[in-house]
Amino acid sequence: MGNVDYAYTCSSVEESVQRVAVPPDQPFLKSMKYSLKETFFPDDPLRRFKNQPPSKKFILALQYFFPIFEWAPNYSFQFLKSDLIAGITIASLAIPQGISYAKLANLPPILGLYSSFIPPLIYAMMGSSRDLAVGTVAVGSLLMGSMLGSEVNPNQNPKLFLHLAFTATFFAGVFQASLGLFRLGFIVDFLSHAAIVGFMGGAATVVCLQQLKSILGLEHFTHAADLISVLRSVFTQTHHWRWESAVLGICFIFFLLVTRYFSKKQPKFFWVSAMTPLMSVILGSLLVYFTHAENHGVQVIGELKKGVNPASLTELVFVSPYMTTAIKTGIVTGIIALAEGIAVGRSFAMFKNYHIDGNKEMIAIGTMNIVGSFTSCYLTTGPFSRSAVNYNAGCKTAASNIVMSIAVMLTLLFLTPLFYYTPLVVLAAIIVSAMLGLIDYEAAIHLWKVDKFDFFVCISAYIGVVFGSVEIGLVIAVAISVLRILLFIARPRTFVLGKIPNSEIYRNVEHYPNANRVSGILILKIDAPIYFANASYLRERITRWIDEEEDRIKATGETNLQYIIIDMSAVGNIDTSGISMLEETKKIAERREQQLVLVNPGSEVMKKLNKSNFQKDIGGKWIYLTLEEAVRACNFMLHACKTNPKRDESEGWNNV
Amino acid sequence: MGNVDYAYTCSSVEESVQRVAVPPDQPFLKSMKYSLKETFFPDDPLRRFKNQPPSKKFILALQYFFPIFEWAPNYSFQFLKSDLIAGITIASLAIPQGISYAKLANLPPILGLYSSFIPPLIYAMMGSSRDLAVGTVAVGSLLMGSMLGSEVNPNQNPKLFLHLAFTATFFAGVFQASLGLFRLGFIVDFLSHAAIVGFMGGAATVVCLQQLKSILGLEHFTHAADLISVLRSVFTQTHHWRWESAVLGICFIFFLLVTRYFSKKQPKFFWVSAMTPLMSVILGSLLVYFTHAENHGVQVIGELKKGVNPASLTELVFVSPYMTTAIKTGIVTGIIALAEGIAVGRSFAMFKNYHIDGNKEMIAIGTMNIVGSFTSCYLTTGPFSRSAVNYNAGCKTAASNIVMSIAVMLTLLFLTPLFYYTPLVVLAAIIVSAMLGLIDYEAAIHLWKVDKFDFFVCISAYIGVVFGSVEIGLVIAVAISVLRILLFIARPRTFVLGKIPNSEIYRNVEHYPNANRVSGILILKIDAPIYFANASYLRERITRWIDEEEDRIKATGETNLQYIIIDMSAVGNIDTSGISMLEETKKIAERREQQLVLVNPGSEVMKKLNKSNFQKDIGGKWIYLTLEEAVRACNFMLHACKTNPKRDESEGWNNV
Repeated sequence: MGNVDYAYTCSSVEESVQRVAVPPDQPFLKSMKYSLKETFFPDDPLRRFKNQPPSKKFILALQYFFPIFEWAPNYSFQFLKSDLIAGITIASLAIPQGISYAKLANLPPILGLYSSFIPPLIYAMMGSSRDLAVGTVAVGSLLMGSMLGSEVNPNQNPKLFLHLAFTATFFAGVFQASLGLFRLGFIVDFLSHAAIVGFMGGAATVVCLQQLKSILGLEHFTHAADLISVLRSVFTQTHHWRWESAVLGICFIFFLLVTRYFSKKQPKFFWVSAMTPLMSVILGSLLVYFTHAENHGVQVIGELKKGVNPASLTELVFVSPYMTTAIKTGIVTGIIALAEGIAVGRSFAMFKNYHIDGNKEMIAIGTMNIVGSFTSCYLTTGPFSRSAVNYNAGCKTAASNIVMSIAVMLTLLFLTPLFYYTPLVVLAAIIVSAMLGLIDYEAAIHLWKVDKFDFFVCISAYIGVVFGSVEIGLVIAVAISVLRILLFIARPRTFVLGKIPNSEIYRNVEHYPNANRVSGILILKIDAPIYFANASYLRERITRWIDEEEDRIKATGETNLQYIIIDMSAVGNIDTSGISMLEETKKIAERREQQLVLVNPGSEVMKKLNKSNFQKDIGGKWIYLTLEEAVRACNFMLHACKTNPKRDESEGWNNV
Repeated sequence: MGNVDYAYTCSSVEESVQRVAVPPDQPFLKSMKYSLKETFFPDDPLRRFKNQPPSKKFILALQYFFPIFEWAPNYSFQFLKSDLIAGITIASLAIPQGISYAKLANLPPILGLYSSFIPPLIYAMMGSSRDLAVGTVAVGSLLMGSMLGSEVNPNQNPKLFLHLAFTATFFAGVFQASLGLFRLGFIVDFLSHAAIVGFMGGAATVVCLQQLKSILGLEHFTHAADLISVLRSVFTQTHHWRWESAVLGICFIFFLLVTRYFSKKQPKFFWVSAMTPLMSVILGSLLVYFTHAENHGVQVIGELKKGVNPASLTELVFVSPYMTTAIKTGIVTGIIALAEGIAVGRSFAMFKNYHIDGNKEMIAIGTMNIVGSFTSCYLTTGPFSRSAVNYNAGCKTAASNIVMSIAVMLTLLFLTPLFYYTPLVVLAAIIVSAMLGLIDYEAAIHLWKVDKFDFFVCISAYIGVVFGSVEIGLVIAVAISVLRILLFIARPRTFVLGKIPNSEIYRNVEHYPNANRVSGILILKIDAPIYFANASYLRERITRWIDEEEDRIKATGETNLQYIIIDMSAVGNIDTSGISMLEETKKIAERREQQLVLVNPGSEVMKKLNKSNFQKDIGGKWIYLTLEEAVRACNFMLHACKTNPKRDESEGWNNV
């Protein structure tokens, strides 16, 4: 190891230098326990349980799983007043939306009401959000309808289709709750914001297109959801279009959009836009009742069964081949529903400055769907629109969900006959106006401005959903997002650092034009962990940096390149392939009569360099804590000592 | 933006401070071109073509695709002498190995010889390695045999099986060449070293187990390759074991292992172990010829057709359902073969200090397989054992492959009848002794010592291959390796920095126990890019760091926490989810009357912060270039100015 000895010989500059410490060796089990904890319990949920008597621990556990025990004891009359107003407001939105979305899933409309009765009660007990209003969602409904519809025709076999919907809801709940229980909530994070914007926009477009059936009063319609099938279905039967229905639909869409625009401009009148759907239903029903438009091509809901949710536990289907479809549908819809519910819960929690535990929310949403599947409900979550209304209406606790639930129950018990004359076209108008709000083109423009790749993810998801199917869009979005991460690791950025004049600061010469290269020394920074996926790339790229620097030096006639300094401060981790890469780079440099110097490896990296003997191999002296110290030492060697450090090329070729 | 103004008011410390520059804005197309170049052309292969006349460009291009034009003009008699010796040595290894591996793939033994005739000629013209010796490989042969065997029984339908093997080889070649042409060579990098160690070890174990058939002289044997099936097959027919065959097998294995051990100890006598396989074949054949052991349960090769490779272009199968199998087999075996060939080429290139272009090698190996599939050859690559012998025998250029090829041709033309009496058990012994060298338990121990996760990848691949199948092992290894990368991003390490006394250096307080926290300031470092996959994790983790720091401060009674500094120097990139995370963290901090400060964001990050207006939002003043400057500014505020910087909490809640 000639270099090490050599460095010691010329070591006068070395005395004041801080060394890079090797972190204390930890027993395998301890470090593994630490990693597992950081991976699965980053929020350390057991912290509150420490040093508490058993009775207190029991209460804390109860409060953990049922937050209602946390807020109910302090519940006041003031809260009740606020929650009552909010609850009634969201109920007025929930009833028409519930009926509309159930139609979207090809399910009996009454299921939309059932789903706004039981699940909110469960969530009120278990949920940790104070603002989430529970109910069915458009995208989830569409997805469930189309995924189950590819296996069973809802018109030919409505009973089986209904039972499959309950089964899929059951599996969605089980999947959601298990993600929470096993602390795997981070899976939801792999749906990036960009992917969700594109996906939601695409789904909203598809849902709007589907509404052309009701708005144009068509009786036959494609079951496919993609743009091309729908447009073909619409334009091949222009002779069946009903103008009465279309006029009614356009009027109601206009009415809904105008009131929403008004409420947006005047936030005080949020209740106007919240009440409009119910108003539209009432207006539409009255219109049909008095004009008997049901005989002129305007389809109506018809009879709704009176009474609260019947049990559906015995109707779950656990026989193949349908079970596989139900499981698949459950997992896909479950994860989409979770993504929406948790994102919505988190946003409102942030506004009001309280904390939401993602894993706990998953357990709550999962339980609500499991119980829902036993009581004739289908997939529910916390839809954005309804929760925003709840928040604006001034809800204080999850009790507003209980109020909504009671209002829906009263509707189920006494008011269902009133919906007999409600025209389908009004429901379609409600869906269209809700969906137009989901096409968030402003977010897409923002993505384009800030991050082109995110925009690409977003637009791919959109195109995948609109031209393929909701599942295809989802898979594309996740795949591209993951590919981006892999590409970041596989092709990490490396750049040359220069010294900023009159300082000890070294920065990217491209980013800081005033940073100067140090003559005879090439300083490189690697911007990612060194893993198998980038080890050979980095070796080639570093070699090319050296080549280019030598070409540059030849052209300018500066001091020959003698030191290659690699700044490791951004290298978060290294694996065995990465260590081999460093060893090879060291040999490549040595053959060119250059010395490899490492600066500031982090604790993980230092631990592994030490264990793999690379540290000894390079000579402890050639690892510095700061760039300034490394450069000073190299400069000292370049000028004060001999110009060519000794090489030892004889080592190790034969032992392969 | 109260904070910004405030910072300006107390700005006496700020004057000498270096600001973080916003990198110059680049046109979208230019930056995209740069990224694409860095991704697909990291080695800049067109550099040599710059500023050259067209005729020179043509020669350079010819030399690029056919490196033989580069080295042939300077070929000397000295080189020829070395290459002749090396070529004859590897031919003596290639002939018995070729026959053995073809048996392993359930193909006619003569194919092993064919495959050592044409492909080496192609490689000699197109390959850029001087040391690679071309031929068939054990793992590739086994994989091809088992994957095709699951579709077509090689005993019942040998002709179709043979044609499928040619077709699979064709697709393997096409796949390999396209990877090279489209510069997608990095896909091979996703097979990490650890995965390959485990995978090769597992495949070697499986191959050894398969040899029990020949060694025990069994006639019926399972077609499955997993441990359990093989052991069951062996021990259910103990009454069919032939002791003559077993004794012969064990003797030859012993002979081969002893000579290999001797050659390893005495590198000068490398040719002893290189010649032993051929010696064994000759000895075994003579033994059978004189004792007529073929009548006592020792199976022999039998007749081999005389003559060089017949054409097989018309025998490729392009009809489904077999084509799908052939494509699948081609892709899997092709990538495995590439991984071995390129790794071997690179290692030897490093020993001799020349450069290998991975993408070019892929084109060479791919072309050699395409041409091979037209001339009755099956999958070839650069096997490690043969290349090592070539290297040790002192080869100078790829001409040693031509010598080997001629030697094999002569064998095909004149010597095939001599193999009539060669006992299969000798071939099995050759395979076993070669395979034992592939079980690299020392590498596995090294992995365990240096990187537990790599060891886990390795052992999973091994178990997957041995108990499942070669494909399962491969999929497991790649999946776990990719999962590791995703986990690194999804759960990045964050840690608290402290100041090292008498310096301006801030380091991880866990790693450097002498680093001290700065009172009133929490300095955090994030060790990975901030992407959608970790944005919510980081928000939670940072909040927990703040909570813990506040608990600690409460216990010790230090100055209240007022500044949260995040060191961004290891954050290589950020996406829109990451920027939202920073915005949210800033709001969380503000609600606790704390100020968020960023330090040293890289150029990519700074560009995006600037575009997203976060930079304005936080106030340009709260982004510093170095930790020391940030801490000095915060300290100044803490002591000289008012203790509570103004807050502006009113912003932006309503515009959601």
